[in-house]
Parts: sequence; structure tokens; C-alpha cells
Amino acid sequence: MQAFLANIQGLTAIGIGLIIGLGALGACLGIGIMGGKFIEGAARQPELINELQTKMFLLAGLIDAAFLIGVGVAMLFAFANPLLAVIK
Amino acid sequence: MQAFLANIQGLTAIGIGLIIGLGALGACLGIGIMGGKFIEGAARQPELINELQTKMFLLAGLIDAAFLIGVGVAMLFAFANPLLAVIK
Amino acid sequence: MQAFLANIQGLTAIGIGLIIGLGALGACLGIGIMGGKFIEGAARQPELINELQTKMFLLAGLIDAAFLIGVGVAMLFAFANPLLAVIK
Amino acid sequence: MQAFLANIQGLTAIGIGLIIGLGALGACLGIGIMGGKFIEGAARQPELINELQTKMFLLAGLIDAAFLIGVGVAMLFAFANPLLAVIK
Amino acid sequence: MQAFLANIQGLTAIGIGLIIGLGALGACLGIGIMGGKFIEGAARQPELINELQTKMFLLAGLIDAAFLIGVGVAMLFAFANPLLAVIK
Amino acid sequence: MQAFLANIQGLTAIGIGLIIGLGALGACLGIGIMGGKFIEGAARQPELINELQTKMFLLAGLIDAAFLIGVGVAMLFAFANPLLAVIK
Amino acid sequence: MQAFLANIQGLTAIGIGLIIGLGALGACLGIGIMGGKFIEGAARQPELINELQTKMFLLAGLIDAAFLIGVGVAMLFAFANPLLAVIK
Amino acid sequence: MQAFLANIQGLTAIGIGLIIGLGALGACLGIGIMGGKFIEGAARQPELINELQTKMFLLAGLIDAAFLIGVGVAMLFAFANPLLAVIK
Amino acid sequence: MQAFLANIQGLTAIGIGLIIGLGALGACLGIGIMGGKFIEGAARQPELINELQTKMFLLAGLIDAAFLIGVGVAMLFAFANPLLAVIK
Amino acid sequence: MQAFLANIQGLTAIGIGLIIGLGALGACLGIGIMGGKFIEGAARQPELINELQTKMFLLAGLIDAAFLIGVGVAMLFAFANPLLAVIK
Amino acid sequence: MQAFLANIQGLTAIGIGLIIGLGALGACLGIGIMGGKFIEGAARQPELINELQTKMFLLAGLIDAAFLIGVGVAMLFAFANPLLAVIK
Amino acid sequence: MQAFLANIQGLTAIGIGLIIGLGALGACLGIGIMGGKFIEGAARQPELINELQTKMFLLAGLIDAAFLIGVGVAMLFAFANPLLAVIK
Amino acid sequence: MQAFLANIQGLTAIGIGLIIGLGALGACLGIGIMGGKFIEGAARQPELINELQTKMFLLAGLIDAAFLIGVGVAMLFAFANPLLAVIK
Amino acid sequence: MQAFLANIQGLTAIGIGLIIGLGALGACLGIGIMGGKFIEGAARQPELINELQTKMFLLAGLIDAAFLIGVGVAMLFAFANPLLAVIK
Repeated sequence: MQAFLANIQGLTAIGIGLIIGLGALGACLGIGIMGGKFIEGAARQPELINELQTKMFLLAGLIDAAFLIGVGVAMLFAFANPLLAVIK
Repeated sequence: MQAFLANIQGLTAIGIGLIIGLGALGACLGIGIMGGKFIEGAARQPELINELQTKMFLLAGLIDAAFLIGVGVAMLFAFANPLLAVIK
Repeated sequence: MQAFLANIQGLTAIGIGLIIGLGALGACLGIGIMGGKFIEGAARQPELINELQTKMFLLAGLIDAAFLIGVGVAMLFAFANPLLAVIK
Repeated sequence: MQAFLANIQGLTAIGIGLIIGLGALGACLGIGIMGGKFIEGAARQPELINELQTKMFLLAGLIDAAFLIGVGVAMLFAFANPLLAVIK
Repeated sequence: MQAFLANIQGLTAIGIGLIIGLGALGACLGIGIMGGKFIEGAARQPELINELQTKMFLLAGLIDAAFLIGVGVAMLFAFANPLLAVIK
Repeated sequence: MQAFLANIQGLTAIGIGLIIGLGALGACLGIGIMGGKFIEGAARQPELINELQTKMFLLAGLIDAAFLIGVGVAMLFAFANPLLAVIK
Repeated sequence: MQAFLANIQGLTAIGIGLIIGLGALGACLGIGIMGGKFIEGAARQPELINELQTKMFLLAGLIDAAFLIGVGVAMLFAFANPLLAVIK
Repeated sequence: MQAFLANIQGLTAIGIGLIIGLGALGACLGIGIMGGKFIEGAARQPELINELQTKMFLLAGLIDAAFLIGVGVAMLFAFANPLLAVIK
Repeated sequence: MQAFLANIQGLTAIGIGLIIGLGALGACLGIGIMGGKFIEGAARQPELINELQTKMFLLAGLIDAAFLIGVGVAMLFAFANPLLAVIK
Repeated sequence: MQAFLANIQGLTAIGIGLIIGLGALGACLGIGIMGGKFIEGAARQPELINELQTKMFLLAGLIDAAFLIGVGVAMLFAFANPLLAVIK
Repeated sequence: MQAFLANIQGLTAIGIGLIIGLGALGACLGIGIMGGKFIEGAARQPELINELQTKMFLLAGLIDAAFLIGVGVAMLFAFANPLLAVIK
Repeated sequence: MQAFLANIQGLTAIGIGLIIGLGALGACLGIGIMGGKFIEGAARQPELINELQTKMFLLAGLIDAAFLIGVGVAMLFAFANPLLAVIK
Repeated sequence: MQAFLANIQGLTAIGIGLIIGLGALGACLGIGIMGGKFIEGAARQPELINELQTKMFLLAGLIDAAFLIGVGVAMLFAFANPLLAVIK
Repeated sequence: MQAFLANIQGLTAIGIGLIIGLGALGACLGIGIMGGKFIEGAARQPELINELQTKMFLLAGLIDAAFLIGVGVAMLFAFANPLLAVIK
């Protein structure tokens, strides 16, 4: 049974690497693109900075949400890998 | 039978990694692109910020929906992998 | 027979990962691109927001349709994998 | 004979994943690009919205057609895999 | 002989996946690009919509033709795989 | 001898998949790019539509020619695989 | 000796797939790009259509030449694979 | 048992490499894109430099957050790999 | 000795596929890009068509030269593979 | 036990290569993009050079931070690989 | 000794394919890009055609030089593979 | 023990190749992009050349720093591979 | 000892293919990009052609230098592979 | 011991190929991009050619430095592979 568990856990490690790695790549680029527009907008209309910033945080939250959901799923797999339940 | 279950579960882990990893990459970039346009529009027409924001949330919801459906499917596979049903 | 079923189910898991992962990537980017144009159009012509939004929802539905068809197919494979029927 | 059938069915699962996954990616991006132009055109000429929308639906149908043909082929392979006929 | 047939059929399944998957990706993107220009042209010159639409259908047919030829070939391989003829 | 024939036929199936899949991808994108310019030109100069259409068909034929040559070659390999001739 | 011939022929099938597949991809895209410029030029200067068309055919011929040389080489390998000559 | 642990730890090393490598790539590019816009904005409106800088730090923090979450997860795997818990 | 020759010839087939496939891809795209500029220039300055065409042929010849050198080398390998000389 | 340690250390070497290689690629490109904007801004507003430079250093520090964190993690793995702790 | 020679020669064939294939791809695209600018410049300043052409040939020679050096090296490997010298 | 050391050292060689290869690719492109902007800025404002050059050197130093850190790490692995310490 | 030498020489052949192939790709594209700008500049300012040409040669020399260094290294490996020195 | 040395040296050859190949690709493209800007700047401001050229050489030196460091490291590995020191 140990061998089967080790087999699943090993491939789960690769799966977690794909989830968090691709998610972090996307989140960093996404916030970078969105944030660049925010800086641009803020420089063009300084009187709107605070309003725009609130919106920017909302967007950053939305972008990070997708990433963090992936992290959460990865943590679930790390600590209580549901895939192991069938090996008893 | 354990060996067969372990075999399916291991490959399912890779499949889940593809689903959530590619989905998170897409969701982050998609919201980033859309959000950049929102910030731009808001900076250009401050009086429309609240109206635009409602629309932005709608779009972010639509983008996240696709990602979350993938997460939901991944969770299904994680907790009650329907692929295992045939191994009895 | 168990071994044959396990073999098919394992590769089906990878196939499902490709279907939902690539589909979610496409759906998120597609709605992101389309939604960015919607925000732009709405900011330029505020009096058209509601009309444009209806159209945007139509488009988002069309984009999600392609993704959801893929999810539906994946679910079919997950719960009642038709590929297994020949192994009896 | 079971082993041969299982071998074909397993590789068919990967093939179906390629068909529907790449097809959904293409359909989502294609409708996203086309739909962005529709929103743009509609915002620029509001009096044409209904006419343009009819055209947009035509195009979305044409784009989805290619995807759905792929899905149909995949279903054929799933339920009545013609590749199995030669193993008797 | 069964083993040889199964070997050919399995690799044929991958080949069919490549044909229809890449073809559908190309057809969806191609019609999306072309259709976006059609919507743009129609919005700029509404009096030409019907004429342009006829042309657009011609182009969509030409694009789909390439895809459908691929599908036809794939069907040929699926139902009457000519590659099997030499194994007798 | 059967084993050698099966070996060649199996790899030929992958080769045919590459030929038709990449060819269809190229043909669809190529006609899409060219067709978008045609729609654009037709919308700008409606009095030239018929003349331009003739040219467009010529170009579509030229693009499809490259694809169809690939299909023809693939058919040759499918029905009378010349690579098998040496195994006697 | 049969085994050696089958080995070479099988890898030759993959090589032919690369030659014709990549060549067709290039030819379709190349004519598509060049043809789009032709349509554009023809729409801008209708009085030059015939002259430009002659040039376009020349270019299409030049582009196809590269592809057809590849096809010719592939045919050579298919029907009289010179690589086999050393196995006697 | 040692062999199973070593197997999981080895694949975990690859997974950690994917997480931190892709995350650092994304974070560097993301801050680079966003920072370029900041420099641009600062050069255009020198009187806003300090205000913009505060915003830039916020964005850099948000971008780095996604990367650092990945690093944190990687550290967790490195020091107390939860995947090992099932091998006892 | 046959086995060694077959081994070299098989890998040579893949090498030839890379040479001609990548070369044809490059030649088609290269002539397509250059030819598009020629059509553009000819439409803008019809009185220069013949002069420009001479230059275009020169360039097409230069582009094809690189491809044809590759084909020549491939033919050399096909008919008189110098790599075989050491196996005697 | 030596074999298990060697197995983990070998794969750790690949993981470190991914971390530092992708990180350095990102850091170099990120600073290059950001630095190009700085040079541009400095050439346009020479009186701001010193102020902009301070900001540029801040940004370069932020970009390098992500890279250096990766290096630090890699060093940790190199000198005191926490993954080895479980093999005792 | 034959086996060792065959092993080196086989991998050399792949290496030659990489050298000439990538080189031809680069040379064709490079001359295509440079030649497009030449046609453009010639159409804009017809009185300079001959002078520009001389320069264009110089550039084409420089581009081809890199490719031809690769071909020369490949020929060296084909006819007198220096890598074989150590097997005696 | 020799076999374990050789195993780690061999994979370390690949890891070093990734670190320095990707790092050099990034550094060259990064300095090229940044340097192009410097040349542009210097040509536009010749009186600023010396000031800009100082800044350019700073940036080049920052870009090279990331690359050189990678080289330093690679050297560490080459001369005193810390990964070997556990094999005793 | 022969087997060890053949092993190193075979992998060296792949390494040489990477060095010269990627180097030639880069050199051809690099000179093509730089040369296109030279042709453009020469067409715009004919009186500067000779001066610009001298500079262009300098640049082409600098670009080729990187490629030729790679070729030189490859030749070193081909004729006097320093990697073999340790096998005695 | 010979076998272990040969194993390390073979993988070192691949690592060197990655270092010099990717480095040369980057250096050629980087100098090409930077040099194109130099030619452009020189054509626009002929009186600055000499000053700009000095700067261009500085930049080319900086770009080549990254490449040459890679070459130097590769040479080190080729002639006195420090990775071999542990095999005694």
C-alpha cells in the first residue's frame, strides 16, 4: 500500500507545481498589465487617484482570487490529499 | 485492485493540475486585460466610474465563472473521483 | 479486466484535464478581450451601456457555451465513460 | 482481445482530449476577437445594433460549427468508436 | 494479427486527434479574424451589409472547407482505416 | 512480416496527422487573414466587390492548393502506402 | 533485413510528415499574408488589378515552389526511399 | 519506506522548481511592465512623483504577493512536506 | 553491420525532415513577407513595377537559395549518405 | 540510503536550474524594459534625471528582489536541502 | 567498434538537421525582412535603386554567410566526422 | 558511492546549462532593448549623452547583476557542489 | 573505453547542433533586422550611404562575432573534444 | 570509474550546448535590435555618428560580455570540468 500512496503523492507534487507556478505567472503578469494602466491613468488625472486606487484594489483582489483559489486547492492536496482516500 | 486505483488517482492529479493551472493563468490574464481597460475608461470619464464598475464586476464574474467551473470539476475528481467507479 | 479499465480511466483523466484546462484558458482570455472592448465602448458612449451590456452577455454566453460543452463532455467521460463499454 | 481494445480506447481518450480542448480554445478566442469588434461597432453606430447582432450570431454560429463538428466526432469516438471494429 | 491492428488503430486515434484538433483551432481563429473585419466593415458602411455578408459566407465556407476536408479524412480513417488493409 | 507492416503503418498514421493537421491550421488562418483584407477592401470600395472577389477566389484557391496537395499525399499514404513496398 | 527496412521506413514516415506539414503551414500563411496585401493594393488602385495579379501569381508560384520542392522530396522518399539502398 | 519517501521528495523538488521559477519570471516581468509605466508617468508629471510612487509600491507589493505566496508554499513543501504524512 | 546502417539511416530520415520542413516554412514565410511589400510598392508606384519585380526576383532567389542549399544537402544524405562511410 | 539521497539531490539540481534560470531571464528582461523607459524619460526631461534614477533603483531593487528570493531558496536547497531530512 | 561509430553517426545526423534546419529558417526570414525594407525603399526613391541593391546584396551575403558557415560545418561532419577520430 | 556522485554531477551539469543559458539570453536581450532606447535618446538630445551614458551603465550593471549572480551560483555548483555533501 | 568515448562524442554532436543551429538562427535574424533599418536609413538619406554602410559592417561584424565564437567552440569540440581527456 | 566520468562528460556536452547556443541567439538578436536603432539615429543625425558609434560599441561590448562569460564558463567545463573532481 505504501508504494501506491507514494506513487499518488509524487504525481500530486508535480500537479501542485503546475497549479501554483502557472497561477503565479498569470497573477503577476495580470496585475502588472492592469497596474500599468492604473499608473498611467493616475498620472493623467491626479485628482482621481484615490478613486482609481480603490478600483485597482478591487481588480487586484479579483486577479489574486483566481490565484489564491489555486493555492487553496494545492494546500488541500498537500495536507489532506483527497486522492488518497481510495487506497485503504 | 489497489494498484489500479493508485494508477488512476496519480494521473488524475496531473489532470487536476492542468485544469486549475491553465484556468488560473487564463483568469488572471483575462481580468488583467479587462481591468486595464476599466481603469483607462474610469480615468477618462470619472463620472461613469460606478456604472463601469458594476459592468466590470459582471465581466470579472463571467471570467471567473469559467475558472471556477474548472475548480469545481477538479474538486469533484479529488473527492469523489468518478473515474474510480468502474474498479470494483 | 480491472487492469484494462484502469488503463483507460487513467488516460481519460489526462484527456479531461486537456479539455477543461485549455477550454478555461480560452474562455477566460476570450471574455477578457471582448469585455475590455465593452468597457471601452461603454466609457465612450454611456447612454448605450444597457444595450451594449445585453450584447456583451450574449457574447459571453456564446464564449462560455464552447467551454461548457467541453465541461459537459468531460463530465460524461467522468461519470459514464463510454470508452469503457467495450471492455466487458 | 480485451487488452487490444483497452489499448485503442485509452489512446482514443487522449485524441478526444486534443479535439475538444484545442477546439474550445479556438472557439472561445475566435468569438472573443469577433465579439470585441461587434461591441466596438455597436458603440460607434448604435442605430445598427440589431442588424450587426444578427450578423454576429451568424459568425458565432460559423465559429461554433467548427468546434461542434469536433465535439460530434469526439462523441462518435466515445460511444461507438469506429476504430474498434477491426478487433473481433 | 489482433495486436498489429490494435497498434495501428491506437496511433490512428492520436493522428485523428491532431487533424481535427488543429483544424478546429485554425477554423475558429480564422473565422474570428475574418468575421471581426466583416462586423467592422458592416458598421462603417451599413448600406453594404447584405453584399458583404454574401462575401463573408463565401469566405467562411472556404475556411471551413479546409477544416471539413480534415474531418472527412479523419472519418475515413475512423470507419474504414485504409492503413489496416495491409494486415491480412 | 505483419509486425513490420504494422510498425510502418502506425507511424504513418502519426505522419498523416501532422500533414493534414498543420496544413488545415495554416489554410484556415491564411484564408482568414486574406479574407479579412478582402472584406475591408470591399467595404471601402463597393464598386470593386466583384472584381476583388474573383481575385480573392484565386488566392483562396492558391492557399487551399498547398493544403490539398498535403491531403492528396496523405491519401496516397493511407490507401497505397508506398513505404510498404520494400517489405515483401 | 525486413526489420531494418521497417525501422527506416517508419522513421521516414515521420520525416515526410514534418516536411509536408511544416511546408503547407508556411505556404498557406505566406500566400495569405502576401494575398492580403494584393487585395489591399487592388482595392486602392483598381486600374492596376491585372498588372498586380500577374505579380501576385509570380509570388504565389515562388512561395509554392518551396512547398512543392518539399513535396517532391517527400514523394521521392515515399516511392523510392534512397535511404534503403544501403540495406541489401 | 525510504524509497517511497525519496520518490516523493525528488518529484517535490521539481514541483518547487516550477513554482518558484515561473513565479519569479512572472513577478520580474510584471514589475518591469508596471514600473516602466511609472517612470513614464513620473517623467510626464514630475509633481506627482511621490503620489505615484506610493501607488507603485502598492502594486509591486500586490505582484510580489503572488510570487511570495508561491515561495511560502514551496518552503512548506521543502521543510515539512505534507505529502509525506501518509507514508508511515 | 546491417543493424548499424539501419540505425544511421533512420535517424538521417528525421534529420532530413527537420532540414526541409523548417527550411520550407522559412522560405514560404520569407517570400510572403517580402512579396507583400513588393505588391504594396507596386500598387503605390505603378511606373516602377518592372524595376521592382526584377529586384523581387533577386530577393526571392536569395531566399530560395538558403532553402535549396538545405534541400541539396538533404538529397546528398538521401542518396549517398556520407555518414555511412565509416561502417564498413 | 545513499541511493535515495543521490536521487533527491539530482532532481534538486534540475529544480535549482529552473528557479535561477527562469528567474534571471525574467529579471534581465524586466529591468531592460523598465530601464528603456527610464532612459527615454531622462532624455525627454533632463532636469528630472536624478529623481527618476532614484525611482528606477527602487524598481530595479523590486525586480531583483523576486530573482534574489529565488536564488536564496536555491542556495538553501544547495547547502542544506530540507528535502533530505526525511531520509534518515 | 562498429556499434560505437554507428551510435555517433546517428546522433550526428540529428545534429546536422538542427544546424541546417534552424539556419535555413533564420536565413529565409532574415532576408525576407531585410528585402521587404529594400523593396519599400526602392519604391519610395526609385533613383536610388541601384545603390540600394548593392547594399542589399551585401546584407544578403552577410545573412547567408552565417547560414553557409553552418552548412559548411555540417558538411564537415557529414564527410569527415571529426568526432569519430577517437574511436580507433 | 561513485555512482551516486556521478549521477548528481551529471544532472548538475544540465542545471548549470539552464542557469547560464537562459540568463545569458535574458541579459543580451535586456541590454539590447535598453541600449536601443539609449541610442535613440542620445541621437535626439546629443547634449545629454554623457549623463544618459552614466545611467545606461547603471542599468547594464543591474541587468548583468542578475546574470552574474546566476553565473556565480553555477560556479559554486561546478567547483564545490553543495549537493554532494550528503553523500559520504 | 571505446563505449565511453562513443557516448561522449554522440552527445557532443547534439550539443554542437544546438550551438551552431541556434547561433545561425540568431545571426540571420539579427542582421536581417539591423540591415532592414540600414536600407531604410540609406533610402531616406542617400548622401549618408557610405558612412552608414561602414557602421553597418561594424554591426554585422559584431553580430557575426557571437555566432563565429560559437562555431569556433563547436570546431574545438569536433576536432579535439576536451571532454574526452578524462577517459584514458 | 570511467563509466561515471563518461556519464558526467556526456551531460556536460549538452549543458555547454545550451549555454553557448542560447547565449549566441540572445547576443545576435540583442546587437541586431540595438544596432538597428543606432543606424536609425545615425541616419537622422549624421553629425552625431561618431559619438553614437562609441556608445554603440560600449553597448555591444556589454551585450557580448554576457555571452562571452557564458563561453568562458563553457570552456572551463570543457577543459577542466570541475564536476569531475569528486570522482577519484
